[in-house]
Amino acid sequence: MEKAARRSYRGVSFEDRLLDRRERLIDAGIAIYARKGTERASVAAICREAKLTGRHFYEIFGDRDAFFAEAFRSVTDSLLELVKAAIDPASPVVSALGGFFNALLDHPDEARVFLLELHNNDPLVLAIGKDFSARLTELIAPEVTQELMKVGAEGAIMQIARRWVSGGYTESVGDVANMAARFSFVGQDRRPTSRHPAKAI
Amino acid sequence: MEKAARRSYRGVSFEDRLLDRRERLIDAGIAIYARKGTERASVAAICREAKLTGRHFYEIFGDRDAFFAEAFRSVTDSLLELVKAAIDPASPVVSALGGFFNALLDHPDEARVFLLELHNNDPLVLAIGKDFSARLTELIAPEVTQELMKVGAEGAIMQIARRWVSGGYTESVGDVANMAARFSFVGQDRRPTSRHPAKAI
Repeated sequence: MEKAARRSYRGVSFEDRLLDRRERLIDAGIAIYARKGTERASVAAICREAKLTGRHFYEIFGDRDAFFAEAFRSVTDSLLELVKAAIDPASPVVSALGGFFNALLDHPDEARVFLLELHNNDPLVLAIGKDFSARLTELIAPEVTQELMKVGAEGAIMQIARRWVSGGYTESVGDVANMAARFSFVGQDRRPTSRHPAKAI
Repeated sequence: MEKAARRSYRGVSFEDRLLDRRERLIDAGIAIYARKGTERASVAAICREAKLTGRHFYEIFGDRDAFFAEAFRSVTDSLLELVKAAIDPASPVVSALGGFFNALLDHPDEARVFLLELHNNDPLVLAIGKDFSARLTELIAPEVTQELMKVGAEGAIMQIARRWVSGGYTESVGDVANMAARFSFVGQDRRPTSRHPAKAI
């Protein structure tokens, strides 16, 4: 591996070529998943789309399930980067949410495959989803400390995102971000702030 | 069918016997799903648990997937009945939520199989889940009118329920219901009620 990493072809290192292929396959995978559904997307179709061979695919990812998990991880990492980049310290929650909804609008394939149509039982995929939720919640509900309130804010925002995407992005990013922000803010308060305070039961 | 419905055996009508078998199979299915997971639950194991034969099973349900969907429908119908029965007009939201969380506490198998471990891609199962969410939202967030706020309240409450169940029911029903209620109440207000009002972006 050490030796291979030092080899180069027309000035492009072996590692760079691997990274390039990896990226091309993931982009192709997302396109094929969006077009055919995750169940019916074949490795052959993904390789054709990426203009690479099955050998390249298996060399990098091992198998189809591992590839799906890697694509999911790559999409969630990029999404979190976009959210972070959008944060304005003057209004961190609403700006983070604006970044989140803008990213879903700009990347409809990723939004559909990994947010809307993700019914995947694979433990690795579930773990990536859980990790993504936790990291996203730190960005969009940073001041919520109670565990169940944090979970509630996250559930509200993800469900709003799912409905917004499946409904064809009808509302503006600003409107959706403002609505979602209300669920983030409610978790910050120690006591109910609504005009209908909850009574103990 | 008309004729069959009128036939009776030891004073029990054919229809009553069918209903009784249906119920026994569904109860057995839930027990087996909880014990083995939905993937590994076989029709044979379900029939053994119900002390009925495969012929009875296929006569009533047609196939394994249809059975799962019927069991899911039966569980969600019962859950909604328990929520309705718990509603106190003096505090409809918190009492409905108390009924919901109490039902999850009293029926841990159902909660685990159909709330926590439901990663099912079947269109019928997805439709039943969607219908359940919509009917539950009418009970636990009755005054929320804006579509995305309704969706947000539902997402928050379902996610709190999932975490509460997976976490082993650590918090009291009253505490969970009060926390969940805050996400229901936030949707009722026309403008943000938090001390951190959302700014337009």
